[in-house]
Amino acid sequence: MGKEITSRSEDYAQWYIDLVKKADLAENSDVRGCMVIKPYGYSIWEKMQAGLDKMFKDTGHVNAYFPLFVPKSMFEAEEKNAEGFAKECAIVTHYRLKSDPLKKGKLMVDPDAKLEEELVVRPTSEAIIWSTYKRWIQSYRDLPVLINQWANVVRWEMRTRLFLRTAEFLWQEGHTAHATAPEAIQETEQMLNVYAEFVETFMAVPVIKGKKSEGERFPGAVETYCIEAMMQDGKALQAGTSHFLGQNFADAFGVQFTNKEGKLDKVWGTSWGVSTRLIGALIMAHSDDDGLVLPPKLAPIHVVIVPIFKTEQELEKISEQANQIAGALRKQGYSVKFDNRDTHKPGFKFAEWELKGVPVRIAIGPRDLENKTVEVARRDTKEKQVVALDAIATSIPALLDSIQENIYQKALAFRNSMITPVNSFDEFKQVLDGKGGFVLAHWDGTAETEAAIKEDTKATIRCIPLDAKPESGVCVYSGKPSDKRVLFARAY
Amino acid sequence: MGKEITSRSEDYAQWYIDLVKKADLAENSDVRGCMVIKPYGYSIWEKMQAGLDKMFKDTGHVNAYFPLFVPKSMFEAEEKNAEGFAKECAIVTHYRLKSDPLKKGKLMVDPDAKLEEELVVRPTSEAIIWSTYKRWIQSYRDLPVLINQWANVVRWEMRTRLFLRTAEFLWQEGHTAHATAPEAIQETEQMLNVYAEFVETFMAVPVIKGKKSEGERFPGAVETYCIEAMMQDGKALQAGTSHFLGQNFADAFGVQFTNKEGKLDKVWGTSWGVSTRLIGALIMAHSDDDGLVLPPKLAPIHVVIVPIFKTEQELEKISEQANQIAGALRKQGYSVKFDNRDTHKPGFKFAEWELKGVPVRIAIGPRDLENKTVEVARRDTKEKQVVALDAIATSIPALLDSIQENIYQKALAFRNSMITPVNSFDEFKQVLDGKGGFVLAHWDGTAETEAAIKEDTKATIRCIPLDAKPESGVCVYSGKPSDKRVLFARAY
Repeated sequence: MGKEITSRSEDYAQWYIDLVKKADLAENSDVRGCMVIKPYGYSIWEKMQAGLDKMFKDTGHVNAYFPLFVPKSMFEAEEKNAEGFAKECAIVTHYRLKSDPLKKGKLMVDPDAKLEEELVVRPTSEAIIWSTYKRWIQSYRDLPVLINQWANVVRWEMRTRLFLRTAEFLWQEGHTAHATAPEAIQETEQMLNVYAEFVETFMAVPVIKGKKSEGERFPGAVETYCIEAMMQDGKALQAGTSHFLGQNFADAFGVQFTNKEGKLDKVWGTSWGVSTRLIGALIMAHSDDDGLVLPPKLAPIHVVIVPIFKTEQELEKISEQANQIAGALRKQGYSVKFDNRDTHKPGFKFAEWELKGVPVRIAIGPRDLENKTVEVARRDTKEKQVVALDAIATSIPALLDSIQENIYQKALAFRNSMITPVNSFDEFKQVLDGKGGFVLAHWDGTAETEAAIKEDTKATIRCIPLDAKPESGVCVYSGKPSDKRVLFARAY
Repeated sequence: MGKEITSRSEDYAQWYIDLVKKADLAENSDVRGCMVIKPYGYSIWEKMQAGLDKMFKDTGHVNAYFPLFVPKSMFEAEEKNAEGFAKECAIVTHYRLKSDPLKKGKLMVDPDAKLEEELVVRPTSEAIIWSTYKRWIQSYRDLPVLINQWANVVRWEMRTRLFLRTAEFLWQEGHTAHATAPEAIQETEQMLNVYAEFVETFMAVPVIKGKKSEGERFPGAVETYCIEAMMQDGKALQAGTSHFLGQNFADAFGVQFTNKEGKLDKVWGTSWGVSTRLIGALIMAHSDDDGLVLPPKLAPIHVVIVPIFKTEQELEKISEQANQIAGALRKQGYSVKFDNRDTHKPGFKFAEWELKGVPVRIAIGPRDLENKTVEVARRDTKEKQVVALDAIATSIPALLDSIQENIYQKALAFRNSMITPVNSFDEFKQVLDGKGGFVLAHWDGTAETEAAIKEDTKATIRCIPLDAKPESGVCVYSGKPSDKRVLFARAY
């Protein structure tokens, strides 16, 4: 089909790019670092949005929309946050173009239309949102504020890669305000759990929940929680973060409230987000050398039906059968594609739908019509079976459930095999350079050691797992005492 | 309740602003011309999105996402389009902030991070999308391309007004590519019909379909179709546009395809959009001096239940009943709010939910419990009736349907009463300055006359109605011959 993709063993990074492009998920645009999300890729994002949005609403959140632009003076109000994003901001300085007197038909920036204050294109919305919350929050009765926003954000990344790191990306960002610290911490943890549940149940990607070290924290946060996933090449990927902001943004923007005792108090905050980066994680966690492997819960098409025919008459009879099957499955809420193109051979179609990761393929030929059967192939294991026509309406839904579960179990077994406890720095480096994956090691808790290990190995502390067991040991790098192991890895 | 709003007769413009703010729909942000869409307002937008998105998909369109930024050289490729938007563009010129050496803790634009080429924040996406279509379209087999995008856009408007005209707004923009002109024109008309159907059936706002005069056309379009609605103050509002782009963007970006005969041909295009402006239209078409009147199909809350109680015990019994009613209605897909706050009196709650436009209010008191009845009030007419408990599950859905229909019929009768045929320029001005509304008048078809009338009366040609009957006459302004009447009005 002229769509060969590089194999994972040959060049994993190229395999990823090939897959994204050839499965029609996304492509680079003519705008530096910005991607075009193509319809097939976007439909995966729509499914992710629908799943997450429902979970947000079920936990009491509502959606709203805040401005794209943040005036510089507002942006710099929370100093750590501003400092963290200052180096990668797109800045609007003018509001008009005019005809270029030197080049006919061309435009130039109108120097008379310079803004009095520059506008930052939001890299994240804490500043604009907390400047708004100041107006909304006066009393404890106004709390909590539980808001989510679906939006585009811009971070001027120098090295970009489709979905994983782009200058503009789509995401959701939750921003909540609370009367007390425990309530805000509970919200931070709740949303981490929502993310973990989404990534595991919808994306079929197992994650490890933890806290970031101080060095890896979100700028402006008191604590950053995260979920970390393992990709097939042994590199980790941060799939979502949930931040306890303490009173940092309340301080920066003067957001105070009268508490139940009638006293003035400062508001506590959280923020949490996941982005189109998740599509990159989805691809890298499950797919193979033949193309995408999509979990049914996020697959734009659940079932493709391919007719095997020689004559018009055969196609006609098969179509009748196919339409019946499609109708029965659609009634149950599944998305079914009947690929009746007469311009392509079945083998081409098989390869194309495998590339696109459609979980189940049904092939129907003349002999199937006679036998009242169809051939059913599952994308994840490539296994085929013959299924009686009258069993399809029940067996396909069961098969899709089993594919969802199998993909998860496979990823879980792999991920578990990629967590290696090590007890020396030599072992640490051997594992990283050998099988890769997560390395569970004792760390002395200092930023110096963390930086030295990163400098030496390119591995970072992915998280301090929430379920880390207390265990006395010594730091693999410094030999100083440590009371638990943390999770290191090279990461996307 | 401290939420008094200005009456329409006193000051219509202020009434609108009061309503938007006091019903918690939106507010001005600290960013010039940009609004914050608050949760209640955003939930109306979510309902609009859901309705429209389904209609787009039912007509064969898919969603995708294209970059926010358009390089200047790409932006200026289609000259008329560029010229049309050049005066109101936000321009990104730099990609980094740095510490300001003169002001501790403050940031400044880093002069070393100037972009080689300026980026325009999209005011509309034809340029970036057609530069992408060039890569996607080679053969007639690649056509049609039927894509929609949900996005934010920026137009640097000088005078802004919440929802109706803001520097940043949310919208959808369809961009399609076709092999032939008739096919593209058919698409343009189809989407105009989709918009008309949406605005009439969901928003309950009647519209007139027509074509724009040359002077009012979208820059870069060959023909602009529109739907025009009538607001309660007699001003018109353009509710949606659908453009036949001819081959203008194919020309500008070199988008060609090999047709069935094997010859190279240029692609034909359309684009079409509606925006958060529709929320402004929704408010102004139906609401009254007590607040919003929302059509049930777009109301975030369909039914509010208010308990009338004196004692805790009474509230307990009423709550049981209320929860049963809410459960039965929710099962049918309705959104129900049980307002059991003990901090506010029923009268306050009644006023608040009227302000928020909830279509149906159910009040339950101790006597209702005895009689097995409830009091049902409809927001549109303020009529109340006593309904037997066992009839609620069927009567409320019927009532909601009847409210949807009644709101539409009321708006239709009003709109029809506001179309006035006139035969002289004196009459034209008298009607405009008197009752206002649409004026149906003969026009000589020239841009000069159109401009002179606008200069004199501030009325513009809203559209040349698609159903205009051929009728010989003379232009009200120039006395030159005319073969049909066109629709004039002052407009938002």
